[in-house]
Amino acid sequence: MRIGVLGTGMVGDAIGTRLVELGHDVVMGSRTVNNEKAVAWAAPLGERATPGTFADAAAHGELLVNATAGAVSLAALAAAGADNLTGKVLVDVANAIAEYGPPLRLDPCGDDSLAEQIQRTFPGARVVKALNTMNCNVMVRPQSVPGDHDVFMAGEDPAAKDAVRALLHEMGWADGSIRDLGGIVAARGMEMYLVLWIALRMELGHGAFNIRVVE
Amino acid sequence: MRIGVLGTGMVGDAIGTRLVELGHDVVMGSRTVNNEKAVAWAAPLGERATPGTFADAAAHGELLVNATAGAVSLAALAAAGADNLTGKVLVDVANAIAEYGPPLRLDPCGDDSLAEQIQRTFPGARVVKALNTMNCNVMVRPQSVPGDHDVFMAGEDPAAKDAVRALLHEMGWADGSIRDLGGIVAARGMEMYLVLWIALRMELGHGAFNIRVVE
Repeated sequence: MRIGVLGTGMVGDAIGTRLVELGHDVVMGSRTVNNEKAVAWAAPLGERATPGTFADAAAHGELLVNATAGAVSLAALAAAGADNLTGKVLVDVANAIAEYGPPLRLDPCGDDSLAEQIQRTFPGARVVKALNTMNCNVMVRPQSVPGDHDVFMAGEDPAAKDAVRALLHEMGWADGSIRDLGGIVAARGMEMYLVLWIALRMELGHGAFNIRVVE
Repeated sequence: MRIGVLGTGMVGDAIGTRLVELGHDVVMGSRTVNNEKAVAWAAPLGERATPGTFADAAAHGELLVNATAGAVSLAALAAAGADNLTGKVLVDVANAIAEYGPPLRLDPCGDDSLAEQIQRTFPGARVVKALNTMNCNVMVRPQSVPGDHDVFMAGEDPAAKDAVRALLHEMGWADGSIRDLGGIVAARGMEMYLVLWIALRMELGHGAFNIRVVE
């Protein structure tokens, strides 16, 4: 599949690399066409990995991944171009970190979420919040954490969620570990969970963990 | 131990009942001395269960449990009397629900927590946030959910946390399931997790679940 990954940080790098490994054609988008990190990312990966602008990545992708920092996600998506987002599945893995702290502070928080902001701002995009509740290595290689653990999804478009589910399967997520929490408003809980995640990250001293819903 | 449970709702009822079963002497506090729910709670439990005012419960307890609704917790604790809280371990199990929604809305949320408000307002109390991240039946009987799953703690006083840990052991929590997340500021993540919990509650259709940190 042609996929556009927006963002050149650790998360964009991990997701972009994994998607290329899985056989997808990926353009990593940033503010400039020759972003140093995007060029370095693409170099060892061969012809299926290409750096580009946000608009290049969004135009290229049949499916898009927002892996930009939450504080600049709306600007990055605006630079990508609303027309390039229309009709596309947009997997929002970003977290709306306003201050790293400690204590960490989110914005929006509570009565709104970044995923909802994105969906409102780009109503033509088919936004699915997913994967933001864990370290990026765990996102793309769930088997790196032993045993069963879970990934959450929220969004308004069932077919878009099916596409995300298929991509999660490719990355190694079993169906029983994928929990569909309903409409995009459920992104609030997924994003606010980051504050507990950070506390766990500090307690454990590493990020190679996740949570399992036990019932 | 003499324990004061503030609050006559489902959570206070479940915790109070379990503590009496475990052999503790419990006063359940409410706004009035003859609260109907507190009287009904005490009736079948024998002489170790007594209804009373918030002040009665707080004066009675060597250890206190705040099981009031988060929106009225500060008022309930004020009615209990700051002097009755001073030096006491105060286990805060409340959630700061401002609107049940859906969507659920918390207040405070993000840059403060109910547990921090309580600790600031009653600096003599030794506040430990715990148990608020699950259904009250799971709180007091963790074995009601099969397998391993976790309970979190946050607070400034190590000896107070030791007392809460001992009480959690009595209820059936194994040491490896009790995660100390550090100072009281970690209550923010524990309280904000409620929004994800509610989404899971709706997905699963029941409250008999919890999360396990997998690493």
